[in-house]
Amino acid sequence: MFVKPEMIEKESMRLIEEGMDKKRIAFYSKRELKIVKRCIHTSADFDYQYNMIFSKDVVGNAFEIFKRGAVVVCDTAMAAAGINKRVLGELNSEVRSFIADEDVAKEAAERGITRSAICIERAASLYEKSKKPVIIAVGNAPTALIKLHEMIKDGSFIPDLIIGVPVGFVNVVESKELILSDNCKCIVSAGRKGGSNIAACIVNSIMYQLKEENI
Amino acid sequence: MFVKPEMIEKESMRLIEEGMDKKRIAFYSKRELKIVKRCIHTSADFDYQYNMIFSKDVVGNAFEIFKRGAVVVCDTAMAAAGINKRVLGELNSEVRSFIADEDVAKEAAERGITRSAICIERAASLYEKSKKPVIIAVGNAPTALIKLHEMIKDGSFIPDLIIGVPVGFVNVVESKELILSDNCKCIVSAGRKGGSNIAACIVNSIMYQLKEENI
Repeated sequence: MFVKPEMIEKESMRLIEEGMDKKRIAFYSKRELKIVKRCIHTSADFDYQYNMIFSKDVVGNAFEIFKRGAVVVCDTAMAAAGINKRVLGELNSEVRSFIADEDVAKEAAERGITRSAICIERAASLYEKSKKPVIIAVGNAPTALIKLHEMIKDGSFIPDLIIGVPVGFVNVVESKELILSDNCKCIVSAGRKGGSNIAACIVNSIMYQLKEENI
Repeated sequence: MFVKPEMIEKESMRLIEEGMDKKRIAFYSKRELKIVKRCIHTSADFDYQYNMIFSKDVVGNAFEIFKRGAVVVCDTAMAAAGINKRVLGELNSEVRSFIADEDVAKEAAERGITRSAICIERAASLYEKSKKPVIIAVGNAPTALIKLHEMIKDGSFIPDLIIGVPVGFVNVVESKELILSDNCKCIVSAGRKGGSNIAACIVNSIMYQLKEENI
């Protein structure tokens, strides 16, 4: 009755490709398609074949970032938990999330802005100090993307890659449109859909592909 | 342009109810409907209005479990990360996940079964020892549900509540059907959809409702 564990992922990806719109399979590059399929794998939601937007050569750019050793800054503990730590370590990269830090909550209350916005400022100052490339992965907080947009606009922080996939019904669509208008290196799920699980699976897909391609 | 943070959740829930099928709103109890709406809030996917199955009075049962101080055992670190720890602590409850434990990986390799199946056995022996009520929340691994089904069948472990919402294309639908056939106290997303985010948001919704109702 049941498919053996080692065959599950292969068979899942076959079923996903079988269920996809052929025109959308042709629309994406081979690397982008692998990310799209992993988003569908993570959610069982075929809408991801229509809503994923990739800036030009973004997966190849992401490979170069990971080869230099990246810091992946997540807006939630959940996205951070979903990133494969073994593979991340093999790529001399690390994941950070500032959202649960006590001083972040304190500063957010004092300044009357969201904790997520403060986290983007923390990521920017980390970038200043470490000089390591920074990937911002936003699966939940549109305010994180809005803060990023403001910092990109005034030139104070331009991350090496933005994964902009917050989910929700309020402010979410608009926040993604702002990031897309910035012409930065990004992977975005247009519309309402996304999530911490989607943010994590995109990071994982990039890392797995880099290992597979062995470049 | 943007809705203020404190208004976001209220406005989101209004938009979700507005977007739902009126017949499905009438189908669920008030408490069940709050869980369904939170699943849609977490995924922006209205399919959850059609696929959520609740055993009789399950939310009221879950309240009683949390009032005794529950252990919520998750199949992934991601689901565990998504559960609101502040509210969990206020309810004298805790979350556990065994999946990353070294001895779990070792035993799984030795016995040729999945780590997720071992985790269910770990939950069962924790239950034996602590006598605290156990909620099993499965957002990823159909093998966890299959193992649960076997243990329920032979009477070796009957958890107080099963949240069975694994996601995926292989073994997932079947594993949910097995759990539904066991007539245990459960909340299940029929079909392929679910996820660690969905598992976490169901636990959160139950806890939030218990606090709101103040019973």
